[in-house]
Amino acid sequence: MIRVGIYGGSGYTGLELMRILLRHPGVQVTGLTSRKFKGQPLSDTYPLFEGLTDIRFIDASPEELAGMADVIFMATPHGEAMAVAPAFVAAGKKVIDLSADFRLRDLDVFATWYHKHTAPELMKRAVYGLPELYREEVKKADLVANPGCYVTSAILALAPALRERVIDPSTIIVDSKSGVSGAGRDPVIGSLFCEVDEGFKAYKVNGHRHSPEIEQELSVLAGQEVKISFTPHLLPLNRGILSTVYASLKKTLSTAELIELYRNVYGNEPFVRVLNRGNYPNVSSVKGTNFCHIGLAVDERTNRVIILSAIDNLVKGASGQAVQNMNLMCGLREDTALDMIALFP
Amino acid sequence: MIRVGIYGGSGYTGLELMRILLRHPGVQVTGLTSRKFKGQPLSDTYPLFEGLTDIRFIDASPEELAGMADVIFMATPHGEAMAVAPAFVAAGKKVIDLSADFRLRDLDVFATWYHKHTAPELMKRAVYGLPELYREEVKKADLVANPGCYVTSAILALAPALRERVIDPSTIIVDSKSGVSGAGRDPVIGSLFCEVDEGFKAYKVNGHRHSPEIEQELSVLAGQEVKISFTPHLLPLNRGILSTVYASLKKTLSTAELIELYRNVYGNEPFVRVLNRGNYPNVSSVKGTNFCHIGLAVDERTNRVIILSAIDNLVKGASGQAVQNMNLMCGLREDTALDMIALFP
Amino acid sequence: MIRVGIYGGSGYTGLELMRILLRHPGVQVTGLTSRKFKGQPLSDTYPLFEGLTDIRFIDASPEELAGMADVIFMATPHGEAMAVAPAFVAAGKKVIDLSADFRLRDLDVFATWYHKHTAPELMKRAVYGLPELYREEVKKADLVANPGCYVTSAILALAPALRERVIDPSTIIVDSKSGVSGAGRDPVIGSLFCEVDEGFKAYKVNGHRHSPEIEQELSVLAGQEVKISFTPHLLPLNRGILSTVYASLKKTLSTAELIELYRNVYGNEPFVRVLNRGNYPNVSSVKGTNFCHIGLAVDERTNRVIILSAIDNLVKGASGQAVQNMNLMCGLREDTALDMIALFP
Amino acid sequence: MIRVGIYGGSGYTGLELMRILLRHPGVQVTGLTSRKFKGQPLSDTYPLFEGLTDIRFIDASPEELAGMADVIFMATPHGEAMAVAPAFVAAGKKVIDLSADFRLRDLDVFATWYHKHTAPELMKRAVYGLPELYREEVKKADLVANPGCYVTSAILALAPALRERVIDPSTIIVDSKSGVSGAGRDPVIGSLFCEVDEGFKAYKVNGHRHSPEIEQELSVLAGQEVKISFTPHLLPLNRGILSTVYASLKKTLSTAELIELYRNVYGNEPFVRVLNRGNYPNVSSVKGTNFCHIGLAVDERTNRVIILSAIDNLVKGASGQAVQNMNLMCGLREDTALDMIALFP
Repeated sequence: MIRVGIYGGSGYTGLELMRILLRHPGVQVTGLTSRKFKGQPLSDTYPLFEGLTDIRFIDASPEELAGMADVIFMATPHGEAMAVAPAFVAAGKKVIDLSADFRLRDLDVFATWYHKHTAPELMKRAVYGLPELYREEVKKADLVANPGCYVTSAILALAPALRERVIDPSTIIVDSKSGVSGAGRDPVIGSLFCEVDEGFKAYKVNGHRHSPEIEQELSVLAGQEVKISFTPHLLPLNRGILSTVYASLKKTLSTAELIELYRNVYGNEPFVRVLNRGNYPNVSSVKGTNFCHIGLAVDERTNRVIILSAIDNLVKGASGQAVQNMNLMCGLREDTALDMIALFP
Repeated sequence: MIRVGIYGGSGYTGLELMRILLRHPGVQVTGLTSRKFKGQPLSDTYPLFEGLTDIRFIDASPEELAGMADVIFMATPHGEAMAVAPAFVAAGKKVIDLSADFRLRDLDVFATWYHKHTAPELMKRAVYGLPELYREEVKKADLVANPGCYVTSAILALAPALRERVIDPSTIIVDSKSGVSGAGRDPVIGSLFCEVDEGFKAYKVNGHRHSPEIEQELSVLAGQEVKISFTPHLLPLNRGILSTVYASLKKTLSTAELIELYRNVYGNEPFVRVLNRGNYPNVSSVKGTNFCHIGLAVDERTNRVIILSAIDNLVKGASGQAVQNMNLMCGLREDTALDMIALFP
Repeated sequence: MIRVGIYGGSGYTGLELMRILLRHPGVQVTGLTSRKFKGQPLSDTYPLFEGLTDIRFIDASPEELAGMADVIFMATPHGEAMAVAPAFVAAGKKVIDLSADFRLRDLDVFATWYHKHTAPELMKRAVYGLPELYREEVKKADLVANPGCYVTSAILALAPALRERVIDPSTIIVDSKSGVSGAGRDPVIGSLFCEVDEGFKAYKVNGHRHSPEIEQELSVLAGQEVKISFTPHLLPLNRGILSTVYASLKKTLSTAELIELYRNVYGNEPFVRVLNRGNYPNVSSVKGTNFCHIGLAVDERTNRVIILSAIDNLVKGASGQAVQNMNLMCGLREDTALDMIALFP
Repeated sequence: MIRVGIYGGSGYTGLELMRILLRHPGVQVTGLTSRKFKGQPLSDTYPLFEGLTDIRFIDASPEELAGMADVIFMATPHGEAMAVAPAFVAAGKKVIDLSADFRLRDLDVFATWYHKHTAPELMKRAVYGLPELYREEVKKADLVANPGCYVTSAILALAPALRERVIDPSTIIVDSKSGVSGAGRDPVIGSLFCEVDEGFKAYKVNGHRHSPEIEQELSVLAGQEVKISFTPHLLPLNRGILSTVYASLKKTLSTAELIELYRNVYGNEPFVRVLNRGNYPNVSSVKGTNFCHIGLAVDERTNRVIILSAIDNLVKGASGQAVQNMNLMCGLREDTALDMIALFP
C-alpha cells in the first residue's frame, strides 16, 4: 500500500484528490495538511465525506509530511510549492506539483509571469506531466509538474496537427471557456455566485499565465517557436473547460482525414476520445472524469481547422491527471482509480 | 455473471442504471430497450458513454428481453410497467419496477390517482423496495416496486420518529424540493431551461401522486392512518431532493436525544447518515450517490421537530436504490457498485 | 427635484436603489457613500451603469451627506445604521433604513438577536415600513425601518388570514427559500458560486434573526403572541424568495372563499397580486419587480391552508420597498419608478 | 397613439415585445396572435403579466390583424413571415420581421440555407434593420428585416475596423456564445434544463444559418467579399450573447488607438458603449437592455485584434432592436421605451 501525503489539501484540487484516492485500491492517504483548517475533519469542510473517512487536516511541515508518505501531492498556490518541494525531493519522495511552479523550462519566462524562481535546479529536473506527450519520462521522474487546466485542453487539441505539420503554427487561436472551480476556493468577489451566475465574459485578455506554458509545449511539438492568441472566458458552471481552437491548414485535408490522423495518434490513449464527424464535445460529457473529448472539423471555405476539446478542469485538468502521473511513477496501471463515468445530468 | 435487461432505458433513470451497472463487477447488461432510439448506440444519445460501451438500444418484446436476462429493470412511464411485468414474472425473472405501478397496496387508491390497475394479482405480490424498511422481504422477492423519489426522502426522514411514537402523526408537513431531472426527459415546455432557470415554484399543491404513497408507508410505521400535507417544489438544478419535515412532539425531547434515536435506528444502514447537531444536509453533498443525509432539530419554543433529508433523486430516489434492491435479491453485497463519492463542486 | 443620499451604497441593495432611482422622475441621487470604493465611479464596480451615470462613491460623514440630500437611504450592515441615523434625523432628513437596526420594537429582543441598541430613543420613533400594513404611519414618518426580505414575504402571505381570524396562530409554519443575493456581496466561502450552484440546503434552522421580526408583526395582526417555525433555505439563483406557509384553519373555508378574502384585503394594493385558484407563484414572475404574488390552497383532508408568496428579495424585499416608502414619505405617487415588468426568462 | 399588432406572439420574442411595448408611451398593442394559445390571456402563458394587461391571444388572419394595427411585428418561425408579409405590406402597414425571411439580399444564398423564397419582390424592398448601419434607410422603410442575434453582435464588433480598413478581412474568426433563449420556446430535448445546465458545447460548427448573413453585411462594410469562420456555442444561462472576434491587423495600431477609432464611430450611438482599455464586456451587464458593450485589445505579439461584444439576444438581438426600428420608422425618438437598466445580479 503506497502512502500518500497531500500538502495544502483544503482547496478544490485537494478535495478532488481525496475523492479519487479514497477509491484507489493501491494507496492510502496518510497525511493531509492545511494551516487554516488544522485539526478539523475533512468532512466538516466537505460534508460529502461524511461517514467515508475520518481524516483530519494537520499542520505538518514538509519534513513531517515526508516522514509519513511515499508520494507527495503539492496542491498549494503558485509560489509555495517551490519553497517546499526541495524538502520532499531531498527526502527521496516522488513528488507531483499541481501548481505552476515547475511547469516552465525557461527561468526568465517564469520570472516574467510569476516572480524569481527559488529552486531553479529542481525546475530543470522536473518532468512536464502530460502523459500523452511525456509518458516515459514521467515513469522515471521523481518530480512531476502537473500541467495547467487550460494548457491540457489546448495541447491535447493541437498536438497531432502540429506534430504532423498539417497546420500553420503562426495562425493558432485558442478560445477557451472554463467553469468557476478553476478559480479555486478563495473567497473573492469575482467568484461569488451572484457575480458569475447568468454572466459570461473574457478575462485576462492577452495576459493569462497559461499562455507561455501553452506556447512552450506547442513550440516543442512544432519544432519552432510558436506564438498564439489565447483568450480565457468564465462559464457559469462548476466544472469543465471547452477550448475552441482555430488554425490554417498547410495542405488540403478533409474532416475525415483529420479525424483519422487524430485517431492514429490517440487510438491507444486511455483518456482521449476522438469523436465521430459531426459530433462536438460537451463539457457535461466529461464531468467528473479524466477524459478529454475532441471534435474536429475542416472549414473548406476558409481552409481552417476547428478543433474542440473538452475536459473536467479539476480532473484531467488537475487532480485526475496528477493521479494518472502517480500511477505511472509508481508502476501502477495508468487508469487505476480513474475509471469514472461522467455524472449527467 | 448476472445478465441484466433494462426495459425502457432511454430516459434519465435508464441512463443512471447504465452508469451504475457498467461499474458493477457482478453483472452484465445484455439488453437495453427503447422503441424510439432502437438501433442507435447508447453513446449517441448520451455521449458520456463514448468509448465505454458499445451497447445499442433494441426494440425487444418483454418475452425477448426475458430470454436475454436474469434480472429485469423496468424504467418505463407509469402505466406501461403493469402491462409487461406479467411476462417477466411468468418467465421466472427477478423484476424491479422503477415506475409507480406496483407501489400502492390499495387498488382503489391506485385507481384514484392513476387509472384502473391491469395486473392486480401481481400488485399483491410486489414488495415495496425500501431496504431500510423491508430488507428481508426484498431479499425473497421476485417483483420489487422501487419507491418514488419524494417518498424515499420523506419516509427516511420520518420512520424513526414515527415508529418510536415521539411525534403526533396528524401534524406532519412535508415540504419537498426537487431538481429537474425528476421530471424526466420528455420534451415539455415546463422542463425547458429558460422556464426553470432562475425560477422556483411549488407545483401540484394538494395533488401530487406521491402523497398516497407517502401516507401508505407512514401509516404502516405509525400503526394508524396518517394524513399529511405534502408540497413539492421545483429547484433550478439537475439532481437532488431536500425534504423539510415538520411535526409536533408528543413528549419532551432534546435535539441530542432525537439524534441518538435516529442513530440507533440507522447506525448500521450503509446509505443513511445522521448528521451532527447543527449540521443540515445539502443536496450537493449526496449528488451522484446512494446516500441519504439527515439533519435534525427540536424547536423547543414551538415543541416541533424539524427533520431535513437529502438524496439524489436519480440514485437513492431511483436507479441506485433499484440496484441496491437487485443486490439484495441476488444475494450480493448490498452496496456493490454503490460506493460513489459525491461530485462536488 | 428631491435630493437623495445613499449611505453605504456599494452592496447589492445600494446597486438596486441606484437602478430604480436613476429612472425616478422626481429625485436625483446627489451622494453615494462607500469607504471601500471611495473615488471610484459606480460603473467601475457595476459595469451595467456604463454610460448611464457618472456618479462616484464618496467617503462622506453622515453630516456631510445630510448636507447634500433631503432623503437618506441607509444601506449599511446591521449595527452601523443606529450609529449614524441620529445625525440624519437631527438634521431633519427623511430617513429610510434598510438594515435591521430599527425593525424590532422590543429592545430586549433586539439585544438577544443582535446586540445592545445604541439609539433606543430613535427606535421608538421608527415606523415599520411595510406599506400594506402601515401606509398612513409611513406617510408621516421621518425614520422608516424597511422590513426584512423574508419578513415581507411571510407577513404579506399571512396578514389577511390572521387578521380575519381564520387560522390558528399556534400552527404557523413558514418554510422560506431565498436566492443568493440575500446574503449580500461580502466575499465569504459560503456565497461562492461553486459552493451554491447545484446545491440546496436549509441554514440557521431555529435561529434566523428574521424570526423575531416576523413574530412581532404577526402578533400585532393576530392580537395575541404568536410563535412560528421558520426555516430559511438557500436557492441556487440570484433573486427571489418563495415562502410556503402552512397553518390550520379555525373554521371551514373553501379555496375560493380564501382567495376572495385575500382579494378583499389586497384588491387596491398596487404591488400585491392574488393568483387565481390552481395557480401558484414563481419567483421568476416577480424578478426585478416590486410585486408580491400570492397563491392559496385549502387542503380539506388536513384542514390546513397552504399560502405561497413570491417576491424579489432585492426589490419588494429591500430597495423597491424602500423607494415605495420614500414615495409615501414625500407625497409622491406610491408606485413612481416602480412600474417594472419582470425580466423573464 | 400608434396601434401595434404582433403576429405570432407566444414565443420569447413576442413576450419581450410585450414587455417593452407595455411601457412605450406612444403605442398600444391592439392585436396579439397565436394559433396555439388563442383565447387565452397572455398572463396565463406568462404569469409575469398578471395584473399588467388583459390582452388575450387571438387567431387573426394577416388581413384581420392589418385592420387592427398601424405597425406589425412578425415574430413567427422562419418561412412563415414571407407567406404573410405581402398582406401586411399591401395593406400599407409598416412591418418589422423578426425572422430571417427578409435578411438575405441574394435569393440563391437564401435558397441554399433555407428554401425557395416565395416573396422575392418583397425581399428586394426590405431594409436590413441594423440602425447603426442603415438608420436613414430604416426611417423610410415599410418592411424592415430585423437582424439575427449572432449577426448583430458580430457586425457591431467588426464594423468600424472593417470600414476603416485596419484589419485583413480574410482572417476574421467569430467565436460566439449564446444563452438558451436564443433557441426559442419549442419543447425539444436539446433545450431541456437537464441537457443544458452545467454543460457547454459548440453546435452547427461550419453550418449555422447566421454565417451568410454575417458575411453579407461584412462584405458591404469591407467593400469586398468576406468569408469568416463562425462557431456558435450554447451557454447555460437565459439571456446574452458574447462574441469573441479575432482578426489580423493590416497596420500597426495600439489598443488606445483602436478604442479611439471605435469611439469616433459609435460616439453618438444611443445603444453602443465602447469600454475603457482593460475592460471587457459581460453579458450580465447588458441583460434586459438594448445595449451593446464592446471591449478591444491589440495583441502586439501576434499582430491581432481581439474584439469582444456583448448583447442581450432577446433585446438588441431581437425585440429591442425591433422596437428601435419601429421608433425610427414612426418618427419617434429612437430610444423610446428602451431606456432599461440591466438587471444585475
